[in-house]
Amino acid sequence: MYDLIIIGAGPAGLTAGIYARRANLKTLILEKETIGGQISSSPVVENYPGYEEISGAELSNHFFNQAINLGADFEIEEVVKIIDGKIKKVITDIGEYEAKAIIIATGARHRLLGLENESDLLGKGIHLCATCDGAFYKNKNVAVVGGANTAVQNAIYLSNICKRVFLICRKDKLKCEKRLLQKVEDMANVDILYNSNIKKINGAELESIIVDENGKQKKIEVEGLFISIGLDPNNELASDLLELGSNGYFLSDDCKTVKSGIFVAGDCRTKDVRQLTTAVNDGTIAAILAMSYINEM
Amino acid sequence: MYDLIIIGAGPAGLTAGIYARRANLKTLILEKETIGGQISSSPVVENYPGYEEISGAELSNHFFNQAINLGADFEIEEVVKIIDGKIKKVITDIGEYEAKAIIIATGARHRLLGLENESDLLGKGIHLCATCDGAFYKNKNVAVVGGANTAVQNAIYLSNICKRVFLICRKDKLKCEKRLLQKVEDMANVDILYNSNIKKINGAELESIIVDENGKQKKIEVEGLFISIGLDPNNELASDLLELGSNGYFLSDDCKTVKSGIFVAGDCRTKDVRQLTTAVNDGTIAAILAMSYINEM
Repeated sequence: MYDLIIIGAGPAGLTAGIYARRANLKTLILEKETIGGQISSSPVVENYPGYEEISGAELSNHFFNQAINLGADFEIEEVVKIIDGKIKKVITDIGEYEAKAIIIATGARHRLLGLENESDLLGKGIHLCATCDGAFYKNKNVAVVGGANTAVQNAIYLSNICKRVFLICRKDKLKCEKRLLQKVEDMANVDILYNSNIKKINGAELESIIVDENGKQKKIEVEGLFISIGLDPNNELASDLLELGSNGYFLSDDCKTVKSGIFVAGDCRTKDVRQLTTAVNDGTIAAILAMSYINEM
Repeated sequence: MYDLIIIGAGPAGLTAGIYARRANLKTLILEKETIGGQISSSPVVENYPGYEEISGAELSNHFFNQAINLGADFEIEEVVKIIDGKIKKVITDIGEYEAKAIIIATGARHRLLGLENESDLLGKGIHLCATCDGAFYKNKNVAVVGGANTAVQNAIYLSNICKRVFLICRKDKLKCEKRLLQKVEDMANVDILYNSNIKKINGAELESIIVDENGKQKKIEVEGLFISIGLDPNNELASDLLELGSNGYFLSDDCKTVKSGIFVAGDCRTKDVRQLTTAVNDGTIAAILAMSYINEM
């Protein structure tokens, strides 16, 4: 039996693994797909303190090796069910494991537009996080697609960095807080295009986009496109076990859930800021909580 | 005038600098003493995800260079006063600066015993954080000095890693939560010494300590000593300006204080876990809050 099973090998899960092993907990990390999670596909990461510039894949490898070299067990298996109890059971597509505590760090996934080229250009012109990647477009033209708070916040954020920002909104109005609406409308270098949809993405690295605005097609030259149409938590595994917030994220009190011995960490939980730095924070806290829980069992 | 002044160049402050510059805020970082703060004096850091092993000085340099190369201004000056207002004034021992927003990241300092050798052996046998450095003492004998919750938690933490743990308590009882007391008393490899004081520390690297227990001196062979007699926040600068919690830490709602445009980050604020990972979390959140505040001014 394990002391701790961590589900998800993104930055939150791997940090939890590092802390758990340093606390000498017998630890298993399960990942269904990609070591490093979302960050593993970022070509360049410049917002993780300690590395001025590193690829997401390399940074993920550092996290992973650190956890593994400290003695965490690791399996590529998809968890299909968690059975709660004093001893918790984790059923995967391949086997079954037992543990005293569980940390769920399954992350979240960004919604995409569904356009040709879109996935190929991820990290090479197309981005999912303005706070993470906006700085790559200093004094350049970019577009943001989306119509809710995050899209508007991203447009404002980018307007402080970029030359010109095109905010492409599918509907005839932005669905955001009033103060944000007023702010974005006041920014001299933000153009808001209503009733607009991106039809085509041009370039082997992004050069321009074709936008249908009120039925008329126009070409907009941008080097960066920030897709801000939403993020979905990977909550399927425990949506019946834990409490969910309005957007489907796991509700928690600083990584603690309503179930004793089950903790959540990283992008899958309700929180305001989803960054590498906030993920490693969660991994740390969840592991320390798990350790205390196990010690007091 | 600056957009943002960050007071303190530890991990929280430097992370705030990185995020602020990536958001294109005109940013000044002020530090009175040591770049990197407390971590700069750690000979080996193994609990920062991304580096399996790095010295605290080297890690601090990475943080610092990253902020500076992104364009943050930096001065070694001691802030003596903050004057709040729509535009905030920061008075230092040398000059005066203005900013739209301020992040206070002044950290905290561990209390020491006041023994000869103590400072020389910091990081070389004597440690201030069990979660950070406990793993260096796998299967070795260590001592913890202190009598409150943290000392007891550290003794329990270390008992899972180390061969034997001596918990040295000045008074005739431990002043901790009941469940912790029961737990630590139950640990087979923890010896609690009451009415005990450390009189001497032996070795160029720690080899043993001389303890006065009920008036009788005894030598205890330990390779590690964890001083857990308290931590004091560096709050002097703003103790009249911001709300303080019972232990003197700045009260905040996820880095937001009662004063608009003044944020706190890192060890100086009330929080449960004080680690590098939680400091970079705070730096990120405070910078993002400061940016939103400035954008909406």
